[in-house]
Amino acid sequence: MSFKAAVDDFQFNLFDMGLLKQVQALPGFEEITDDIVPAVLEENARFVEEQVAPLNTVGDKQPCQWDNGVVKTSPGFREALAAYTQAGWQGLQHETEYGGQNFPKLIASITSENLNTANIAFALCPLLTDGCIEAVRQAGSEEQKQIFIPPMIDGRWTGTMNLTEPQAGSDLALLKTKAIKQDDGTYRITGQKIFITYGEHDMSENIVHLVLARTPDAPPGVKGISLFIVPKFLVNEDGSLGKRNDVWCASVEHKLGIHASPTAVLLFGDNKGEVGEGGAIGYLIGKENEGLAHMFVMMNEARFNVGVQGVAISERAYQHALAYAQDRIQGNAIEGSAEAVAIVNHPDVQRMLHTMKSLIQGARATALYTAMHQDIASHHPDETVRKQAKALQEYMVPIVKAFSTEMSLEVTSLGVQVHGGMGFIEETGAAQHYRDARILPIYEGTTAIQANDFVGRKTWRDGGAVAKHFVAEMDKTVEALKAAGSERLGFIATQLEGAVEAYSAAIDAVLAMGANKELRAAFSSSVPFLMLAGYIHAGWHLARAALVCEGKTEERYVRKLETAIFYAAHLLPRVEALSAAVLSSKVVADIRV
Amino acid sequence: MSFKAAVDDFQFNLFDMGLLKQVQALPGFEEITDDIVPAVLEENARFVEEQVAPLNTVGDKQPCQWDNGVVKTSPGFREALAAYTQAGWQGLQHETEYGGQNFPKLIASITSENLNTANIAFALCPLLTDGCIEAVRQAGSEEQKQIFIPPMIDGRWTGTMNLTEPQAGSDLALLKTKAIKQDDGTYRITGQKIFITYGEHDMSENIVHLVLARTPDAPPGVKGISLFIVPKFLVNEDGSLGKRNDVWCASVEHKLGIHASPTAVLLFGDNKGEVGEGGAIGYLIGKENEGLAHMFVMMNEARFNVGVQGVAISERAYQHALAYAQDRIQGNAIEGSAEAVAIVNHPDVQRMLHTMKSLIQGARATALYTAMHQDIASHHPDETVRKQAKALQEYMVPIVKAFSTEMSLEVTSLGVQVHGGMGFIEETGAAQHYRDARILPIYEGTTAIQANDFVGRKTWRDGGAVAKHFVAEMDKTVEALKAAGSERLGFIATQLEGAVEAYSAAIDAVLAMGANKELRAAFSSSVPFLMLAGYIHAGWHLARAALVCEGKTEERYVRKLETAIFYAAHLLPRVEALSAAVLSSKVVADIRV
Repeated sequence: MSFKAAVDDFQFNLFDMGLLKQVQALPGFEEITDDIVPAVLEENARFVEEQVAPLNTVGDKQPCQWDNGVVKTSPGFREALAAYTQAGWQGLQHETEYGGQNFPKLIASITSENLNTANIAFALCPLLTDGCIEAVRQAGSEEQKQIFIPPMIDGRWTGTMNLTEPQAGSDLALLKTKAIKQDDGTYRITGQKIFITYGEHDMSENIVHLVLARTPDAPPGVKGISLFIVPKFLVNEDGSLGKRNDVWCASVEHKLGIHASPTAVLLFGDNKGEVGEGGAIGYLIGKENEGLAHMFVMMNEARFNVGVQGVAISERAYQHALAYAQDRIQGNAIEGSAEAVAIVNHPDVQRMLHTMKSLIQGARATALYTAMHQDIASHHPDETVRKQAKALQEYMVPIVKAFSTEMSLEVTSLGVQVHGGMGFIEETGAAQHYRDARILPIYEGTTAIQANDFVGRKTWRDGGAVAKHFVAEMDKTVEALKAAGSERLGFIATQLEGAVEAYSAAIDAVLAMGANKELRAAFSSSVPFLMLAGYIHAGWHLARAALVCEGKTEERYVRKLETAIFYAAHLLPRVEALSAAVLSSKVVADIRV
Repeated sequence: MSFKAAVDDFQFNLFDMGLLKQVQALPGFEEITDDIVPAVLEENARFVEEQVAPLNTVGDKQPCQWDNGVVKTSPGFREALAAYTQAGWQGLQHETEYGGQNFPKLIASITSENLNTANIAFALCPLLTDGCIEAVRQAGSEEQKQIFIPPMIDGRWTGTMNLTEPQAGSDLALLKTKAIKQDDGTYRITGQKIFITYGEHDMSENIVHLVLARTPDAPPGVKGISLFIVPKFLVNEDGSLGKRNDVWCASVEHKLGIHASPTAVLLFGDNKGEVGEGGAIGYLIGKENEGLAHMFVMMNEARFNVGVQGVAISERAYQHALAYAQDRIQGNAIEGSAEAVAIVNHPDVQRMLHTMKSLIQGARATALYTAMHQDIASHHPDETVRKQAKALQEYMVPIVKAFSTEMSLEVTSLGVQVHGGMGFIEETGAAQHYRDARILPIYEGTTAIQANDFVGRKTWRDGGAVAKHFVAEMDKTVEALKAAGSERLGFIATQLEGAVEAYSAAIDAVLAMGANKELRAAFSSSVPFLMLAGYIHAGWHLARAALVCEGKTEERYVRKLETAIFYAAHLLPRVEALSAAVLSSKVVADIRV
């Protein structure tokens, strides 16, 4: 089945929650007016619903195919990418100087969600290209920007990230791929990379690989990694394509999900192509041994975007399940009925659908809040404000990545469950979302890697300053909910208050473990701590939404308030359970497998 | 990869937890001695490890194939069923009178777990046959028993359950299949059944279909359903096979998992075969319109067994993940190390493995405790004891079914996560468990159906008597843990005490909603209530295990105690979160989708 972009909820976050106003106030975004935004959202919705969503099942049933180094993508994908880029969506968030449209991240993360809801396997190609553009923009030379960015924006070329090697997944210190400098300033790259998303395909004329490799005299570990541009085809001075570079796709993986997305094994320096022996030709980005920092630019961007994928696939699964529940007749109404009714009337089906919806809306609000801070961090005229916004945004990225993707496993699983036995039949389509979602908590840094980052860099490094800032903000929301004097808001206040206390206690416990160098204890509950943060941030945004909705009688406000109440009743209590695990860290730290 | 049967944990439950002693004291089980049981467990382990487990991947990659009404099963399956039945495993729990060995359910549920750990898609065939045997034994005539049970025990024939129709899944009131009585006392059956596990295959000479259908003058709804034996081939008086009956497999489903298990669409009365027109020939079991009660015998048996499947597939996923974690080198030790170490040393990998292991061991203990009560209920000389045991066992069945299967989704998902990117690659095998497990909370009654049963029949009907019995028992365990005077047991006591209070509060809330006829509120949190019960019963058994292990220095006792501590720290707090949802039922009851 197809889907409808969640335009109502986007508009609620942008307008009712006031996110757009804060972005519009930033220099450079003056043209992002109240008129233009809904028009863009509607046009984007129309595009992805009509042109990309129908290919989701096609790609699952007719995956990409490898044949002797060439990858044939699923039917319609090439045309869809052309349409996507020609309509300007690839360039939406990029600078006008290189052919982009300079929209804020806030809006781009919405269009990104839509594209992923339509077709997550397809959306990975533009997603990786966005990251590649961003890395070249931030770290590349002006010449590199001029050569490589415009064709990636206009869709002639696409981009990839080449990090993983068979022995080096989460641990980049183990990278072996070599880069040897040539007399002309270029490098020759040799080695093998695996898990390269859209590492080879037939959807564009050229592919811009960003590759991590070591120079011969590089220091060991992550301090000896450099970043290179290795295009599939070299580029002539006039911008036309030149010789075929020595980078080859040895195979694509047979995966649980996202079947249409080619996950390539790439060989660099296999002595094929038109550049002679000695390796693929690569161009250094920035300086030697600073590659990891540049790649982190791309990775942080990608991590946020993968978090958005979690929201996106959850939305698709929700709409799928809702439509089935409204259609499937089974069982009498609980209040009694002469005839069997649609299962959407049964309390447990409602519980499942509410759980899905409230998780999605909470995670979406969290992601959009984070995107807004990224815009403030990059565009605000006041450096102090920029720094503060950047600190908040960086704190939120692992939350968005881990929480949205982990919750997508629960949501897509509930999506199957709502379908009953039909959910297990592949033709129904619910199972595809369950399969596709499973990669999200793994790639671009597993949930454990996010949790390491969250505890180490985001909580310990600033002594919990940002974490405590959020606790204080949440306390204010509790007070506001109480002050409203409504029974329903009072219920949310009570639930949120308990959760905030549990969050605060967990932060203190994590800080204490850091101060005492109890590393094993701290990291035995780093994932529960991160998930806890996810549940409460999502619940906080829904609680703020409830404040906005209280007293309003329009259907969409009534529904939103109900969603916040459901979340407060069923999901917020998980914060306390996770906090309990964090507080017990020392008890379990020494238990070995 | 292959697996090793969890013989240590079975022995712990049987001997250290004292389950076996209680069963040995029952009349009829005198021969189940302390010597014979370990020998049986080891022989069973050897059999499933060597002959069934290797077919698990084979079946996934080479699913059963339908061709013009005939289903060819995966390579090796036919031979494995022959070996299984010839070795006597099919008859283990059945009466010696019909060729069985009269072992208690306690032991049979262990051999059932092993078979399912080895190969869940294969195990479904003997599982359904067991249910079919049990239904014929309890409700069939002596002639029916003599004709149909022995060949199902010796493996020449297999059995099925035919409930579901396209319009009638969870709601059997909507059944349409017709049964018309003939002059000779047989019936002619016409209609379509779907989702019939092993409804057609090439592994046995004959298939005994148990079919729910309506006679022409039957009352509407579930009170007008009768149960019939419809064999694929009719049986001659000498027991040899006669005419091909008019039951045909129209197709098999293309499913997310358990690819090797044929899920058949069956047509009854398609005017093919050798029995002429008018429908397939069927034989009434028991009386007309009492079919549902008879089928419930089979269903309750099957529900328990599906719960065991949840434990089984989780065990397989755990062993798979553990082996990978011990093998995969990635990242330095958290305490610092010169070289990268196996990922099993990383705290979050340990958290995932501990979560998996403690959930499995808690769910297994719960299932075995339930099986023991089934033996007491069927064999104890004192009727009062039998009744009490039956009440406890019936309370536990929905817990075993729902909790074990829902937790298997989490465990198999963690199994993928431990593998990182490799987990998403089908060749690794972790993804198969994730796919296979997804049917478990759906078939034999979804989790919501179990929760309806748990709230309605198992909690309201006896005014919470059994529920409160368990609360009182758990309180005793809390006291015993406190009295032990050990810091570790004290920790478990504190965690369990909080959970028992939350369980008790939830029971009171559910009873109050029942008394007040707040049906929508009650069933809006019936699944959280049931999952809550699952978490605390599992935690209770692990806490009791901790009492047994405290002070013992043997490795297996040390590990078991640690497992109980981990569960108390990370899993028991979920009880309070779920209880909070139950206590908020009235707040969310009126929120509609």
